[in-house]
Amino acid sequence: MSEKKRRRTEAGPLAASASLKKSQRSGSHAQGLRKQLKPDAEILASVREMYDAAQSAASSSKALTLSDLSLSAACREVSDRDVASVQLAIERAVLAMARSILAGRGFSFDVPSRAASNQLYVPELDRIVLRDKSSSRPFASLSTVRKATITARVLSLVYAVLRRDIHVTKRDLFYTDVKLFQDQSQSDAVLDDVSCMLGCTRSSLHVVASEKGVVVGRLVFTDDGDRIDCTKMGIGGKAIPPNIDRVGNLESDALFILLVEKDAAFMRLAEDRFYNRFPCIIVTAKGQPDVATRLFLRRMKTELKLPVLALVDSDPYGLKILSVYMCGSKNMSYDSSNLTTPDIKWLGVRPSDLDKYRVPEQCRLPMTEQDVKAGKDLLEEDFVKRNGGWVKELDMMVKTRQKAEIQALSSFGFQYLTEVYLPLKLQQRDWL
Amino acid sequence: MSEKKRRRTEAGPLAASASLKKSQRSGSHAQGLRKQLKPDAEILASVREMYDAAQSAASSSKALTLSDLSLSAACREVSDRDVASVQLAIERAVLAMARSILAGRGFSFDVPSRAASNQLYVPELDRIVLRDKSSSRPFASLSTVRKATITARVLSLVYAVLRRDIHVTKRDLFYTDVKLFQDQSQSDAVLDDVSCMLGCTRSSLHVVASEKGVVVGRLVFTDDGDRIDCTKMGIGGKAIPPNIDRVGNLESDALFILLVEKDAAFMRLAEDRFYNRFPCIIVTAKGQPDVATRLFLRRMKTELKLPVLALVDSDPYGLKILSVYMCGSKNMSYDSSNLTTPDIKWLGVRPSDLDKYRVPEQCRLPMTEQDVKAGKDLLEEDFVKRNGGWVKELDMMVKTRQKAEIQALSSFGFQYLTEVYLPLKLQQRDWL
Repeated sequence: MSEKKRRRTEAGPLAASASLKKSQRSGSHAQGLRKQLKPDAEILASVREMYDAAQSAASSSKALTLSDLSLSAACREVSDRDVASVQLAIERAVLAMARSILAGRGFSFDVPSRAASNQLYVPELDRIVLRDKSSSRPFASLSTVRKATITARVLSLVYAVLRRDIHVTKRDLFYTDVKLFQDQSQSDAVLDDVSCMLGCTRSSLHVVASEKGVVVGRLVFTDDGDRIDCTKMGIGGKAIPPNIDRVGNLESDALFILLVEKDAAFMRLAEDRFYNRFPCIIVTAKGQPDVATRLFLRRMKTELKLPVLALVDSDPYGLKILSVYMCGSKNMSYDSSNLTTPDIKWLGVRPSDLDKYRVPEQCRLPMTEQDVKAGKDLLEEDFVKRNGGWVKELDMMVKTRQKAEIQALSSFGFQYLTEVYLPLKLQQRDWL
Repeated sequence: MSEKKRRRTEAGPLAASASLKKSQRSGSHAQGLRKQLKPDAEILASVREMYDAAQSAASSSKALTLSDLSLSAACREVSDRDVASVQLAIERAVLAMARSILAGRGFSFDVPSRAASNQLYVPELDRIVLRDKSSSRPFASLSTVRKATITARVLSLVYAVLRRDIHVTKRDLFYTDVKLFQDQSQSDAVLDDVSCMLGCTRSSLHVVASEKGVVVGRLVFTDDGDRIDCTKMGIGGKAIPPNIDRVGNLESDALFILLVEKDAAFMRLAEDRFYNRFPCIIVTAKGQPDVATRLFLRRMKTELKLPVLALVDSDPYGLKILSVYMCGSKNMSYDSSNLTTPDIKWLGVRPSDLDKYRVPEQCRLPMTEQDVKAGKDLLEEDFVKRNGGWVKELDMMVKTRQKAEIQALSSFGFQYLTEVYLPLKLQQRDWL
């Protein structure tokens, strides 16, 4: 503890003169904001309200599923299924194949279409699902014999993986039969087909993506049976496991989840043990969200019923990252209900923060033409339009043509993020 | 345990027929190799010999340092120094500046040159160091006033970081004074200058790089005071901390360190708990080695005196990754003694393995012209030339113009890597 305290002591003479010089420039407003901070107990009270709202919302309103809606078109989603039931589904498919062959009718797979034309954004669910179009993939046809063979092979490989109860990567799968698959995009595509055919997620097939996310804070869970206490994971944090089905027994006394876009901000929060002052779970995918981190976030949000606050760069890319967490990517739309975490609050850094916190001009960056176009495209997206606050912020970004990284806050001091910016945000309930 | 066992049980009917089909093709030799495996106790005996050799080598021969060699030219390296001593060094530098100014002589920094012309490969140390050339950076000169100012500013910022006893990233540092630094390459370059001036590593300045490495296996250490048991880190493993100076109390009953190039192989090893069968520490930087992982590997190797075996792709890039771990990158040559881990053994996948294990033709990839050039360039490198075995392997790679990924071994079964390939490698002491 003494070490922790030591870190908080004020800086020495050289540093003091440096910070003096700085405050004479643009930092005086920033330091003024520091004085607005109320005692932690009061800040926590406003956080607790958000927490209570999330808890009651989660328990009162059962999460909507496709079957709750009376959609004009039949739609399709996949769900997590256990090893035995996926095995059973494969055995049934193979049995049906065998019967069909014995009856002299050859065999054919019925494969749901994953094309964009077969995708549908469902506002009530706030995610993309598949319509019911599907196509036949007969073995006895020159145009589909190869794909039918690959499909049979992937079914057999997945079955072998499930029997051993291990996990493999897409690349592993590809290498088991390079001659047949020829290149990895072919086995990858059929793997997604098989997910849709069997009605289960890709994780249920035990084919996993490599992970790059890390987590730290008020969370305890088991990874393959090992109990992990994320308050005791130092500064590096715990690497998020690639196989979500081995994650279990989530426990937490956190009031919220803090989703961070970048590594460096994560390190600052972890080193300052921000979660000890404001009970939270801190998670990052270090940039573009990977599947493992998205699954893990969703799992935390649904099981622990915690509100999620996002800290991203103030640029279109930061918002795109939010959209991947919230609405999924079009590529995996059939799996959207398991991959997406609805209702993430945009805490910061928001375009309006740049003036509110008086981020110095030289720490803001001009947006490129491409940035501006990306911003305008986002304004057309459903998930942005539904949120008036977001539209306003994005409008401001596109008009001012300025962007800024989370790190721009370092211009007020290395620990400004954890000591002033975030506490003040929480105190003022300043999320959208 | 029952779960662990279940995973090892043989595959079901579908899988069996699949593996039968495969063995009729190219897998029969691969399965034959499985029969060559001796009981684990015998394999462990050969591993233990390697371990004993590494232990006695480490304790008998004190690691050479620059001062042990009578080099014709004076050379320069930096070393890890604690917070107090770096602070003292900065205070002394500032005091000297002040005295010089008061004496009417203005002030100037004496900055060691980090240019290629000032670098020297020292075969006895097997790393690159700096020669003694340095240049003067006076404040009262139009050509150096800017750089002198930046240097003074970086000294002051580093001092502030050390006083707070926190860690920051290069990007944080840049953002504290964008007006002065203009772009990050300028503050980064001066940061390296400051390292050389003060004779300490960049980690000692508490400026860290973002981490992406993970570790799992027979290792216990503390990360910022938290005790981490890497046998209880599930499949995801423990993220390697960005700040090596917060890592301490390393303990291990491992016989070797297994350095893995890629994520997917790491996952296979972690899920199969390879370290329980053969006591080892498994570490990966997920591709190109980052500074944090290199520091961590070196720390393990020197403190635990363990041999290091590397598992990389059989291509020039895999060997380049080895060279970064072993000899460092030219960019950070002044810091090479702290970043490099000498004497890493090349376990696999080696060009000769492709035929020895009869990796199917379709799992090998043709080398591009660029690959071949990279291979030929490597043959000219000192660290390759010193090892006859490596030259032979690399020669073979360039001549056959074939490369292969670690994952190519999946063509013999998903767990071939952990169940046959690696145990056989260890049994036959097949490392170079």
